This record gives sequence, structure tokens and C-alpha cells, in this order.
Amino acid sequence: MSLLAPLVAGFDIGGTNVRGVLVDRAGHLVGADRLPRPHEPDGIVDSVVTLVARMGTDAGADAHAVGVGCAGTVDRRGVVRASPNIPTLIEFPLADTLSKRLAMPVIVDNDATTATWAEVKTGAARGIRDVVFVALGTGIGVGIVLDGELRRGAQGFAGEAGHMVISPEGPECVCGRRGCWEVFASGRALGRLTQDAAREHRVPAIVEIAGGVIDDIRGEHVSELVAEGHPEALMMLDELGWWVGLGLTNLVNVLDVSTAVIGGGLSEIGRPLIAAIRVGYNSLMHDSDHRPPLNIVGALHGGRAGAIGAALLAADELHQPSRI
Amino acid sequence: MSLLAPLVAGFDIGGTNVRGVLVDRAGHLVGADRLPRPHEPDGIVDSVVTLVARMGTDAGADAHAVGVGCAGTVDRRGVVRASPNIPTLIEFPLADTLSKRLAMPVIVDNDATTATWAEVKTGAARGIRDVVFVALGTGIGVGIVLDGELRRGAQGFAGEAGHMVISPEGPECVCGRRGCWEVFASGRALGRLTQDAAREHRVPAIVEIAGGVIDDIRGEHVSELVAEGHPEALMMLDELGWWVGLGLTNLVNVLDVSTAVIGGGLSEIGRPLIAAIRVGYNSLMHDSDHRPPLNIVGALHGGRAGAIGAALLAADELHQPSRI
Repeated sequence: MSLLAPLVAGFDIGGTNVRGVLVDRAGHLVGADRLPRPHEPDGIVDSVVTLVARMGTDAGADAHAVGVGCAGTVDRRGVVRASPNIPTLIEFPLADTLSKRLAMPVIVDNDATTATWAEVKTGAARGIRDVVFVALGTGIGVGIVLDGELRRGAQGFAGEAGHMVISPEGPECVCGRRGCWEVFASGRALGRLTQDAAREHRVPAIVEIAGGVIDDIRGEHVSELVAEGHPEALMMLDELGWWVGLGLTNLVNVLDVSTAVIGGGLSEIGRPLIAAIRVGYNSLMHDSDHRPPLNIVGALHGGRAGAIGAALLAADELHQPSRI
Repeated sequence: MSLLAPLVAGFDIGGTNVRGVLVDRAGHLVGADRLPRPHEPDGIVDSVVTLVARMGTDAGADAHAVGVGCAGTVDRRGVVRASPNIPTLIEFPLADTLSKRLAMPVIVDNDATTATWAEVKTGAARGIRDVVFVALGTGIGVGIVLDGELRRGAQGFAGEAGHMVISPEGPECVCGRRGCWEVFASGRALGRLTQDAAREHRVPAIVEIAGGVIDDIRGEHVSELVAEGHPEALMMLDELGWWVGLGLTNLVNVLDVSTAVIGGGLSEIGRPLIAAIRVGYNSLMHDSDHRPPLNIVGALHGGRAGAIGAALLAADELHQPSRI
């Protein structure tokens, strides 16, 4: 196996699926496949090995390196330290385990980090040097590029911006604290905000769609109505956009990025979501006379960003062999 | 004048004073001087020119480059875009103006940024690669070092973390929004928190020191009593430490720094302040089983950090002449 061979496989290990892609040296997609995400670490490793083989057969050429984006905190040696959505992955040396099984170089990083790299290298923020990628899903994951490079922090845990406290008396977060950004601005938060609105009798149509049970209202009920331009759904999107915008002002004040890329499952809502976030951000940002406006854009790679970015990172590492 | 000559002058242009230092090639202090800060930009420029000459005469050798740290937002070309504490400095090309007057290379950066560099190069965070410097003064200024380098963001405005919103319904901030971090965790905030406590009859001794007028209570009244270990002052310090700690958890979640250096005027309180911040931070940080503890330390260079760091930055630039 030559390190100069062109194909690299990328994976995104998430709450539901293990998604794989195969990309060539130019970063173009040449294959994609997925499996339901197994429960145990061994099964997860098996599924990656299976997908590497399957995608290689389909493409007629094998991958020579693997990159993995994984939900959770991943340290700089590719150990998954903890993953709230995949609780079996605790202190698990995913990079080493996969590298031994596959007999090839493997890098593992946080899934939001790898998705960020996909958007900066070949996506919505191509060529931009100071960027945050904000994945709005069940929670919020963030990736940071400053001066053209991913910034992972001391341990590799940077980008846990979903746990910025923005309201210390706010509702409880899965992390055990109160008022984290993701309590107000994630897919799960859209459901919660809409339940609150339902209790105030502001969204009767959404209550009806949810079968009349306020506690059953989910973000998806809002997303569906956004597509038809329903005023109740647009109102909830405005509310969510304000909270997303609030967190973005914090990130811009700390990092002075020029561009925010909005990804994650919620971003499938598309333009109306981006529009609502822009309105929210602009209503909140101070100092606007002396600061150029933030460029807020939707992600280009959708649900494949994490896997594509992992492949691109692994390809980058092939040219700096000291790190793998 | 040779670019290889060893002395570099550094300045900190703040709300009250223009402070100057002279450092040698090894970063050692060889002179220091100051003048009251003039009101108008022309006077500020004159005072820097005067101090360069005076410090050169005192040291028996002239500076060959100048670095300036200035309160406010400073862009990457050394233009002061706006400075809340020096309102006459608006869109003022300080680097170019000084460079013409002095006929030598001049770099200008935000004062918290230059102070950060002083602490990382020769101070409390020497040799550490992922650091936030938090200047607790009238407001809060922050400097960020990731992967061993200052991170200034797209425009040079990074580190405005004092304006992270941490309580959207909170008291008004000078920036026009509500509930920014510096409303709860700066020197001015210590006064405000103590006034609130006075209204609840929790700090009778402090009220007495302030002449019995609650509205006259300032942070300094608390600082004075801390020195004697007065329980009312320690209580207020704990409250402030909780809010400082809250903002630090946000910065750690976003940036994953390993060290936070606490500077600014309030840091003259010393160990009791650092202790209170540590308690606040540790009571708030989640995920502590998988994340090493944050190292929270006091700044080493005190009120001279901004000027020293500016000199060190200018010295660095002499070795990368393309930027000046």
C-alpha cells in the first residue's frame, strides 16, 4: 500500500448512523455508504471496517487512510473521552483501535470539527480564514477556524460552545447546568420554545399537528409548517433565530470571525432559518458602525459534512506523516 | 539607525495614563516612564514621542521600534476604530501617524492583546500554548493565545469577551445591550454587586466606609476591606468570583485553553481574588471527569503588562519586517 495512493475514506459516527464517504485526492466525492450505528464500541469499529471494504469494492479502488468525525469530546490522540449521544464511548482509543484493525493511518476528531473542515476546504466557507461552523442538531456543536487553521485547544475540546451559559437561571441542560446556549437554540430547543408558546395559546395550528398534546410538540412539527410559510412556524423560527443570533454575537465578540456557517439537522430548513438567524443577530450586535457585518450562510455539505471533512483531514495528515 | 539595535519601546494608552517601558533584546525592562493621558489624539501622539525621547536619554540608548497597546478596537493596520474610554480616538491611524513622527517601525494593537503577549512571553503563562488573559478593570478585556500564537480574528477585534451576553434580561451595559459579562464581573461590577447587597442590608460595614451612601459604594471599598480579611468583603469577592468563573467556563467551552491569567486593576487584590475565581469556576464547570482542571493564575506584570507586551510584539515584528 503506497501512501501516495489517492483515495481516503471519511466517517461520521453519530447518534443514529455511521456514515462513510470515499474522496479522491482533489477532495471530490467518489463513494458514500452508511450503516445503523451499533451500540457497543466493538460494533462501531466493525461497521467502519465493513464500510471501508464495501466502498472500496464499489469504487474499484481501496482507501489508504481513514478519517473519523465522532460525536463527543475527542482528545488530540484520537481517544473519545466521552460522548453524551453514544454513552458506550468512554475513554475509548478509537484511532488506535481502528488503525490496528485496518492497518492504515487513522485520525479521529470531533464531528463538528471535521464538518467545519469540510465547509472551509470545499464548502460554504471555502477559502475564508476566520470561521465558526455551528451545527444545530439535538444540541449545538461548533468548530473554529482562525488564521486558516482548525483550532482545537489544549486537549482538542474546543468548540463546546453549545454549553456557553447565556442565562444562568434558565432551564436545565443535559450537562447539569442551567441556561446553556443549546437549551435555547438547538433542534431540541425549537421543540421546547414551541411548547412554551403553546402553553400561552400562541400556536394553535402547531398544537393540532402534534395531536393536541403540547408535550408531544417537537422541532419537526415547526419545520414541516415552515415549508408552507405558516405564520406560527415563522414566528417560532424568529424566536429561535434570536437565540441563535445571541450566541453568535458571543462567538463574534470572542473570536472576531468573518463568517458563520450554519449546519446540522436543523439547517435542512434552509433559507427561512438563515434569514431568521440574520435578523436575530443584527438586532443584537453592538458596535456595528466599526465592525463589518458577519456573513451568515447555510452549510453546503449537509449531512455528509462530518464524513467529508474527516476524509479531507486524513488526506491533509498524509502530507504531515509525523502526526499519524 | 540599524534594525538590529536592541532597544524597543512599549506603550499602553489607557483611560488615565500613557505608560511607557523600554526593553532590551532579551525582553528585560531597562526603563519606564509615564504621562497623564492627553484628551486629543494629537496630544496622545505627542506624549508617546516625548516618552520615547525621555526614556532614551535616561537609558543612554534610543529605541529603534515602538509597540503600542491601546484601549479599544484596533484593526490589523493599527487604526484605532473606536475606544469607549478614549472617545476622541475614532478611526484614528495611530500606527501610521506615530511611525511618521518617530521615523521608526510602529505597531499598534489592543491593550489586552499586548498584555496577553507579555504574560505568555515573560509572565505568568510563559511557554503555555493555549491561554486566555482576562483584564478585570472598569470593563473586561480579553486576549487569546491558541497554538502558541495571539489570535486576533478577521479584523483584529477578537477578545471582546466582556460583551458576551450571559444574562439577556440583566442590567444595561455601556455597549447598549443587556447582561454582558462585564456588567457582572468587572471592577465596576464589584461596585454594583455591592450596592445591591447593601440594599439588602447584607454589607453594613461597607456602607459605613462609603459614608453611608449606598450609591457611592465602589469596588475600591471592597478591595480595601479584603486586605484585612473582612467577612463582608470576602462575601462580595465570592459573588464576583462566581460571575468571573461563569464567563471563564464559557471561554473554556469555546476555546479549551489550559490556563487563564487574571490581570487588570482588580487583580491587584491578589490571592483572595484568584481564590474566589477558582471556587466560582470549579462550582460551575461541567464535564470535569474528562477535562483537566483549568489553571487560574494572577498576572505577573501588573499595570505594566500592556506596555511590556507591546514592546515584545514590536520586537517580534522586527524579525518579520513584512508586517511593519
